[in-house]
Amino acid sequence: MTRRMIILTEGNSNPHTAKTACCLIRYKRDEVAAVLDSTQSGTTQQALGVGADVPFIASLSEAPTANTLLIGIAPPGGKIPSAWRSVILEAIERGMDVISGLHDFLGDDPEFAAAADRRGITIRDVRRNDEKTIARRTGLREECLRIHTVGHDCSIGKMVTSVELTHALADAGHDVKFIATGQTGILVEGDGIPVDCVKADFVSGAAERMVLEHQHHEILVIEGQGSLVHPSYSGVTLSLLHGCHPHGLILCYEIGRTQVTGIDHLAIPPLGEILQLNESLASISSPCPVIGISVNSRRVTAAEADSQRDRLRAEFGLPVADVFRDGTQELVDAILELKQQRARVSS
Amino acid sequence: MTRRMIILTEGNSNPHTAKTACCLIRYKRDEVAAVLDSTQSGTTQQALGVGADVPFIASLSEAPTANTLLIGIAPPGGKIPSAWRSVILEAIERGMDVISGLHDFLGDDPEFAAAADRRGITIRDVRRNDEKTIARRTGLREECLRIHTVGHDCSIGKMVTSVELTHALADAGHDVKFIATGQTGILVEGDGIPVDCVKADFVSGAAERMVLEHQHHEILVIEGQGSLVHPSYSGVTLSLLHGCHPHGLILCYEIGRTQVTGIDHLAIPPLGEILQLNESLASISSPCPVIGISVNSRRVTAAEADSQRDRLRAEFGLPVADVFRDGTQELVDAILELKQQRARVSS
Repeated sequence: MTRRMIILTEGNSNPHTAKTACCLIRYKRDEVAAVLDSTQSGTTQQALGVGADVPFIASLSEAPTANTLLIGIAPPGGKIPSAWRSVILEAIERGMDVISGLHDFLGDDPEFAAAADRRGITIRDVRRNDEKTIARRTGLREECLRIHTVGHDCSIGKMVTSVELTHALADAGHDVKFIATGQTGILVEGDGIPVDCVKADFVSGAAERMVLEHQHHEILVIEGQGSLVHPSYSGVTLSLLHGCHPHGLILCYEIGRTQVTGIDHLAIPPLGEILQLNESLASISSPCPVIGISVNSRRVTAAEADSQRDRLRAEFGLPVADVFRDGTQELVDAILELKQQRARVSS
Repeated sequence: MTRRMIILTEGNSNPHTAKTACCLIRYKRDEVAAVLDSTQSGTTQQALGVGADVPFIASLSEAPTANTLLIGIAPPGGKIPSAWRSVILEAIERGMDVISGLHDFLGDDPEFAAAADRRGITIRDVRRNDEKTIARRTGLREECLRIHTVGHDCSIGKMVTSVELTHALADAGHDVKFIATGQTGILVEGDGIPVDCVKADFVSGAAERMVLEHQHHEILVIEGQGSLVHPSYSGVTLSLLHGCHPHGLILCYEIGRTQVTGIDHLAIPPLGEILQLNESLASISSPCPVIGISVNSRRVTAAEADSQRDRLRAEFGLPVADVFRDGTQELVDAILELKQQRARVSS
């Protein structure tokens, strides 16, 4: 049965807080029936910045063919508001499956669980996992090229960069797999690990396990999370970096982002320092350079984006591109060049 | 009721795998009734390297006054062997509480839970937690000095160093608190956070929460975990480092340790590189130097320990001491010097 989703973004239909909704519309357009946001209902405005043809609706009954409700945003304050509760219960009563990426599992809620059981529908908590693997750094196939996206902050385009590079490499005839590490990536790819919800000891092991399972491919593009300089999430970032043990990094950078997300009083250090930190920590046992910079220029004009791109190229001597404005070719070339370099060295 | 423990170390009574047992004997001697290891029973040998007067026993009945069974080691392969199961069930039947530091919670085992319920005893899974705090870097009291122990590998003495420094500072009249971050430290101190079992997104938040709760003290000594260069645990290390946001670091180092624990084919990088990485990552938003080196010289002679200590002093220009062989004075002085420096700058 094809999944036909209504994505709940109530009161939060913007590209920053409704990242999951945006990415599913972008990459799984045929599975998205509608976006449920009563504050946007009836507007023709493209509030999410993608999928102008996706209707905003105010109630589930407006998209009767949908068979799945996706909770596309985190609730304010962490607790599910009562208005959402009734939407979720209504969806269950209508026989819809429910998918949630929240840290608090819907399937553990007695009322939701009982209703789901009664109607025979499935509640899928994307973050639920029982990872218990310790990273061991054994059995890695060096012929499989491991590319990892890192960044100067969270929510700046590491997932989008990873998916776009994967698509471009596949289009160019390469056998490539996207390794998703966050809830949105997992919904886009269909598998992956919700690393931020794995017990701390097992995050790097989970990343290594994904690499080992998929290293029959020619190239893996492993989605990064957070940033080494974001004090709330840097440990997740480093666990992933060391767990997937990449050969090359793509550094993601959003123009105009100066403060650490969620910690407004903390300035993000200069990009050069962040690049250096990533290379140092990635290269402890074998060299892993940053091979390109993926710029997110959504906040600035095309002219400003071009000027920043030139500046970054001059400063770092690396390929630099906004994967939407400039396309992926330059970064894809950098990945394939690294692949050839490695082949030359090992032959 | 005073806790009187039997510590289960069956077949693993050595200082490396029975770290919890050793530390409880060292710091909670009056609570330890006996060590249960049938392979050591009746020996007068001091297999653990501490507590020569603690009897090894082969069955619970040999220590009838004990009221608590502590699982002091991790089971081989992760699953609890059947011989241990019967010991745990026997302890419960005898009315003893059970404390476990395993990742697999004893309290979730239906047979143990039912038996505990029937006998009215408590199963305490030290690693169980429901941490859901995101680190925010707000509300930190800069008059409270935060000292953090880091290291070049795991199991090299970060906890012991933290406890010894805390005791020495208290003996010198300072108002100091040890912040435990692992199961052994938590059992020694009576509180703390089992960071390796916290969901990855919340590790730094848990560390920050502990600091906020205890920053009415003059000095906090926060136990580190793992190492930035240990690929299995580096993320836990960095979450802690950024979560507790220290003012100064004590770098722990074991003489003779060359390979990463659990990943024998991986060499530990030179200590200077590790020191530099720790300082760089600790100092992103404000300076945090390494102020001393705590050497663990258990594997070498006193002469070799002295020679290594001289070498480290010359190389790094820092105070260096084995807290057991040399005492803590030099490291305590370094901490108090940092405290005075900070007071001079802020006044």
